[in-house]
Amino acid sequence: MSPKITTEMLKQLRQVMKSPKYVQEPIQAYIVPSGDAHQSEYIAPCDCRRAFISGFDGSAGTAIVTEQHAAMWTDGRYFLQAAHQMDNNWTLMKMGLKDTPTQEDWLVSVLPEGSKVGVDPFIIPADQWKRMSKALRSAGHDLVPVKENLIDTIWTDCPQRPCKPLITLDLSYTGVSWRDKIVALRSKMAERKVLWFVVTALDEVAWLFNLRGSDVEYNPVFFAYAVIGMNTIRLFIDGDRMMDPAVREHLQLDSTLEPEFKIQVMPYGSILSELQAVGAGLSPKEKVWLSDKASYALTEAVPKAYRYLTPYTPICIAKAVKNASETEGMRRAHIKDAVALCELFNWLEKEVVPKGTVTEIIAADKAEEFRSQQKDFVELSFATISSTGPNGAIIHYKPVPETNRTLSVNEIYLLDSGAQYKDGTTDVTRTMHFGTPSAYEKECFTYVLKGHIAVSAAIFPNGTKGHLLDSFARSALWDCGLDYLHGTGHGVGSFLNVHEGPCGISYKTFADEPLEAGMIVSDEPGYYEDGSFGIRIENVVLVIPAETKYNFKNRGSLTFEPLTLVPIQTKMIDVNLLTQKEFDWVNDYHQKCREVIGAELERQGRHEALRWLIQETEPLVRVQ
Amino acid sequence: MSPKITTEMLKQLRQVMKSPKYVQEPIQAYIVPSGDAHQSEYIAPCDCRRAFISGFDGSAGTAIVTEQHAAMWTDGRYFLQAAHQMDNNWTLMKMGLKDTPTQEDWLVSVLPEGSKVGVDPFIIPADQWKRMSKALRSAGHDLVPVKENLIDTIWTDCPQRPCKPLITLDLSYTGVSWRDKIVALRSKMAERKVLWFVVTALDEVAWLFNLRGSDVEYNPVFFAYAVIGMNTIRLFIDGDRMMDPAVREHLQLDSTLEPEFKIQVMPYGSILSELQAVGAGLSPKEKVWLSDKASYALTEAVPKAYRYLTPYTPICIAKAVKNASETEGMRRAHIKDAVALCELFNWLEKEVVPKGTVTEIIAADKAEEFRSQQKDFVELSFATISSTGPNGAIIHYKPVPETNRTLSVNEIYLLDSGAQYKDGTTDVTRTMHFGTPSAYEKECFTYVLKGHIAVSAAIFPNGTKGHLLDSFARSALWDCGLDYLHGTGHGVGSFLNVHEGPCGISYKTFADEPLEAGMIVSDEPGYYEDGSFGIRIENVVLVIPAETKYNFKNRGSLTFEPLTLVPIQTKMIDVNLLTQKEFDWVNDYHQKCREVIGAELERQGRHEALRWLIQETEPLVRVQ
Repeated sequence: MSPKITTEMLKQLRQVMKSPKYVQEPIQAYIVPSGDAHQSEYIAPCDCRRAFISGFDGSAGTAIVTEQHAAMWTDGRYFLQAAHQMDNNWTLMKMGLKDTPTQEDWLVSVLPEGSKVGVDPFIIPADQWKRMSKALRSAGHDLVPVKENLIDTIWTDCPQRPCKPLITLDLSYTGVSWRDKIVALRSKMAERKVLWFVVTALDEVAWLFNLRGSDVEYNPVFFAYAVIGMNTIRLFIDGDRMMDPAVREHLQLDSTLEPEFKIQVMPYGSILSELQAVGAGLSPKEKVWLSDKASYALTEAVPKAYRYLTPYTPICIAKAVKNASETEGMRRAHIKDAVALCELFNWLEKEVVPKGTVTEIIAADKAEEFRSQQKDFVELSFATISSTGPNGAIIHYKPVPETNRTLSVNEIYLLDSGAQYKDGTTDVTRTMHFGTPSAYEKECFTYVLKGHIAVSAAIFPNGTKGHLLDSFARSALWDCGLDYLHGTGHGVGSFLNVHEGPCGISYKTFADEPLEAGMIVSDEPGYYEDGSFGIRIENVVLVIPAETKYNFKNRGSLTFEPLTLVPIQTKMIDVNLLTQKEFDWVNDYHQKCREVIGAELERQGRHEALRWLIQETEPLVRVQ
Repeated sequence: MSPKITTEMLKQLRQVMKSPKYVQEPIQAYIVPSGDAHQSEYIAPCDCRRAFISGFDGSAGTAIVTEQHAAMWTDGRYFLQAAHQMDNNWTLMKMGLKDTPTQEDWLVSVLPEGSKVGVDPFIIPADQWKRMSKALRSAGHDLVPVKENLIDTIWTDCPQRPCKPLITLDLSYTGVSWRDKIVALRSKMAERKVLWFVVTALDEVAWLFNLRGSDVEYNPVFFAYAVIGMNTIRLFIDGDRMMDPAVREHLQLDSTLEPEFKIQVMPYGSILSELQAVGAGLSPKEKVWLSDKASYALTEAVPKAYRYLTPYTPICIAKAVKNASETEGMRRAHIKDAVALCELFNWLEKEVVPKGTVTEIIAADKAEEFRSQQKDFVELSFATISSTGPNGAIIHYKPVPETNRTLSVNEIYLLDSGAQYKDGTTDVTRTMHFGTPSAYEKECFTYVLKGHIAVSAAIFPNGTKGHLLDSFARSALWDCGLDYLHGTGHGVGSFLNVHEGPCGISYKTFADEPLEAGMIVSDEPGYYEDGSFGIRIENVVLVIPAETKYNFKNRGSLTFEPLTLVPIQTKMIDVNLLTQKEFDWVNDYHQKCREVIGAELERQGRHEALRWLIQETEPLVRVQ
């Protein structure tokens, strides 16, 4: 990996930072955040501006360029990668280390008095703008919005914004029509006494209209905004996608509809002026609801007195609670996904053990091949983490030719992968050994398994937030002085983003919404030993009501049901470390895998994979 | 309990709210918070202004009086009590209920345009002022500081501010001299580049100077402030307490000292003007460190640009980590406390069972009597919760003649009590049955015990925050659909406040500081059934390093050691519900109680109580 040479580009950027064509007054610093205008986690190539200007293409990082300096803030996952990818023009700011200044403090230390710091107001979330602006102002500087994105002005071969065809989802997938979703949204708006709701997150637009796209890799979303009033629906979207008869029919664009359900289609780029017009027409007590993570540009379009900001939107919360059709779709998707993985693991055992010719990349490609054979397969849901031996200890590893290792009978293999099917999204991690694991490897695997079971089998009161369950996943590891440095679970979309809010299981966040029956999260504790191996066991689990002996204050209880039904390698389990409850959990789980996935393998005529499944789901036995 | 008649007092208060003698312009509302000028949890009688004006004397509540209305905000613990204690002049605002307005919203709804809302700037913490002031301003009103407390102007028989003699603590108790504490504090100040530190919390002043007082019931503190500079020490304290030769000697007031250790004693009331003088003399980059909970008055005394505010002060954090002398003192205090409780429980068994003449109040008094026989006993550390049967389900119960029940062989008895000894502070809860508990009572008790053990025996990495352990205490209850609606633990002072920050074990707070070896917290899960019984098992536990098999990233691990050594009634335990680990924990704990407390009972010649201890610490046996 050689660094990107950025000298010329930085020179150009510094020129436009002073050009009256783009800025009213010269700016002394320009901030280039990671995100897109929708604050997406995964972004399209045209939005990879920070990677373009710096060379560093990790998922998190903020670049700041001043007349003299260029600096990049990123976190511990990316210190090595950023150092490799950036040339000497750049200073790496290692976030989380004690001596690393914040962006604000650094700016204050390097800027001449009374400086102007520019940023694209569409890319910076309103809450970040507020914090940064306050800090700069108290030091005598100004944060200013620069309307035209300055990176775009020098990025001559910038890829076009994707504008791919849409997929319409009928009621059998979504369970609720877009009309009924609008009705429900308007009733939430009435409850909070707001007249308008602005949909800014891409997965929220997709969910609301029961549409999917492929503008962003792995995330079946499309570039659009929506503004919902009590009597109007405006959808801001580009291209000829609205010419597609299936889409027109789905959105009833050509039907005679009650006016409050008539969708007005408008150009994607007109959101700002339309929202400003809405803002200008408001009278006191008429509020506009926005996410507090919406861009500064859209937030500012609404006069402050009329804004109603919340960390989670009603769409985000409604989307998280899956209805019966979505849940059934997720079940089907996970069955198909398990079929593909049984095929893969059976194939790996046949290839790795005797031949030793399978690399991490070959294994990942084979996994995709098996998945793509399944009905309604669309694409992967994230970049496959296929890692063996020491690569398994790199939590966000993705095999590339430079790092690609060959699977062997001597190393632990970790596969974290998932797919988008039209009926659901999957995300599963299995850790296997194709030879004979050491006692220590089995011991660590078993602690991780105990943590996985502790969460999966946990019973907890209705209204409990997921972060309160995080320690359950760690307890067995903690008892032996071990731990893992990531959260335990994230929300999972239904044929939508593999990471979604507002729920999760992590010690790091306390702003999560309480778990409710119908929510779907991952359960993925791990253990990683730098330079040696990585272990992770991940199922996607559905929150379901739990039957309990008593019912304190009539609150009711919840627990989880695994949707993922892929065998957990028993060879890696030290049975002596399991309690009876854990022992029974594994056997019950494997019994269910055998029944449900066995039937589907049978149906699909995949007899070899079925034999593998039967062998891998043999009940554990206690050696007395 | 008949309500206090407040008509006349409210009339007087409304007069002074318009009197130019006290306010520059008439105010339309006056806020009476709960606290004192030090934001103390327990307050002196002269600071019970809210109770004086309203009649409601619960520990939490805010009164607001306008020209037309008088309203009281309090939480669920006090709805009943407040309703009983207040007359018809008052509207009860039930906090936590959906339809209850916030104080700000209510003020906005009742005030005429452009109103002024007054508050004593010494009583309101700066962070609360900020929130309230912002909300009022955005509605066109003003929050204004009223220098003279308006309640005090009408409270003709207001008790005097206490000014009791001080206790000096020598090195054998404190482990560190006040000089060395000042040196350590100044080094923390240098680290953060601040020149001044303002000590506002009463327990922080007491800890810093190794002094104790008795100005507030249960809390061995005294009214004082301190301002520490890099070369000066100012102690603001009233009365002739500084005339006491022992205190003069302890503080070396008459010795020839390096100037930076010379304590300047100043009147308590001069803190504001002195701090204003400090603030006025600052040049850029000279900061003053204050708690963000310090009063608005003191915070405002320092110009905004020079303030350095943190949620926890360096004294709060240093105080929480007990040194060897303090830990040994706490051990001694807990041994003496256990002796007193063995005497009490032995006495109760002899009195309750055959005679049935012991009431909750008699039992509480007897507990105090036994404690007062122990060396270095000073006072109780909080109002004893002595509750039998349904009273046990009232979590903050304190027996009064109207509610006083007689202990019997048919009901569960819960005693939550503690004391201040010169060498340490105790807080212990035991739940007992003097007859034959039902299977259900035993079942609930055993779940609570399992939760208690889960926390007490937990092993967790260095740097873990206490709130991450809270779910461990609930897991056994959750499994059966049960729970309790309070936190699991709080920090405990060393001959200081029985509740102290910055650590604790609760699902409710995330601002706690990480647990460190030497910190001391309580471990007190419970279960409460309204109208029937209450169960709580509470030990005070010391955070200690844990030996683990492995040591991930060299972080080290921690666990707890119980300081409380009082038998847990085995009659209440359903042994079949215990795991082997829990079973062993109980037997090991009782073995330790028998050894340590047995030796002390022997030494004190308390043979009957010793016999009781031996009987109560018989090992559990499994019925096969």
